[in-house]
Amino acid sequence: MKSITRYLTLNTSKRMELINITSQVRKAVEESQVKEGLCLVNAMHISASVFINDNESGLHYDFEKWLEKLAPHNPIEQYKHNDTGEDNADAHLKRQVMGREVVVAITSGKLDFGPWEQIYYGEFDGQRPKRVLIKILGE
Amino acid sequence: MKSITRYLTLNTSKRMELINITSQVRKAVEESQVKEGLCLVNAMHISASVFINDNESGLHYDFEKWLEKLAPHNPIEQYKHNDTGEDNADAHLKRQVMGREVVVAITSGKLDFGPWEQIYYGEFDGQRPKRVLIKILGE
Amino acid sequence: MKSITRYLTLNTSKRMELINITSQVRKAVEESQVKEGLCLVNAMHISASVFINDNESGLHYDFEKWLEKLAPHNPIEQYKHNDTGEDNADAHLKRQVMGREVVVAITSGKLDFGPWEQIYYGEFDGQRPKRVLIKILGE
Repeated sequence: MKSITRYLTLNTSKRMELINITSQVRKAVEESQVKEGLCLVNAMHISASVFINDNESGLHYDFEKWLEKLAPHNPIEQYKHNDTGEDNADAHLKRQVMGREVVVAITSGKLDFGPWEQIYYGEFDGQRPKRVLIKILGE
Repeated sequence: MKSITRYLTLNTSKRMELINITSQVRKAVEESQVKEGLCLVNAMHISASVFINDNESGLHYDFEKWLEKLAPHNPIEQYKHNDTGEDNADAHLKRQVMGREVVVAITSGKLDFGPWEQIYYGEFDGQRPKRVLIKILGE
Repeated sequence: MKSITRYLTLNTSKRMELINITSQVRKAVEESQVKEGLCLVNAMHISASVFINDNESGLHYDFEKWLEKLAPHNPIEQYKHNDTGEDNADAHLKRQVMGREVVVAITSGKLDFGPWEQIYYGEFDGQRPKRVLIKILGE
């Protein structure tokens, strides 16, 4: 059995931002030399997501607008969590809608993807460095 | 270590439809001869889901109605993604609520399930062939 | 390859409740003696979740209030599923928002966690015994 572990660090310029990390994950798969296996990619912070969806900027705009409707940032006083001095309760909620992680199959040494699948980091409380973990297991 | 990869193709008659794929996954587990392992099942398209929930038609009706409320299909102009000529932005959002994938334990050669767990394919932009991936790893 | 399987049984005093199960999962990782691997933790019931988020009681209050807004329990007649005699359709919906499972990397014999990650059991139809599965695979 082979395994490798990689960490990415992301620091967004905006509070909410969606970043395509597919090429970094592909690189880790190549380095692992795993031919048949599983690749876990997860946010290591609890106000961020890793998810798979479309590489289309209009859809990213739609996602951000929709998440803001489902779990609005303002007024920050609507959340008990923000009584602790934080202002990111909404980010913890948004992350649950989008998910913490993806698990992707590796087949014949490659991410076994459908035609449009791209891996995204979803930041909902950004402007500071945060980490993503890539763990690959297989042989 | 053993591994197998299987692909299912689904073509729904309706735009939104939930289809029980548990028996197909069980068949793959048997074929794999894996006794202890993990089974990943994921949608390969980004406007569809794989999830685990109840085999009860009333609940499926509730899911569809609820998803339509959280992320309505109409008016299609409300989504920037649909400016590209698509009309399926809502399907990309619905898929995030329901999830892309499930990972199921295999114990003593079987899906290690609770009493009511059933694996569903959730289609939100159907009426064309789409694929589901089953990847099994273990020994 | 090593693997172990553990089952937890939880019986909440309230209908909706979030319970930190991180220490039980850590114990299973130690018992497994897996150094590099993957740890799946999932609810075995379809009106409950396993998810990773913050150990902060204000946020837990926010989660419960928010889930009640997204998928209200009352009036129970609003859901077709409840025509079967159940009153838990909302719990099936809430579980989809929060997710069924988490997959966590094991690195150097430990859960490879960011600074705030904690594993929670989310109960949405409690007051009876329900099970959580922990499956660890690696070497």
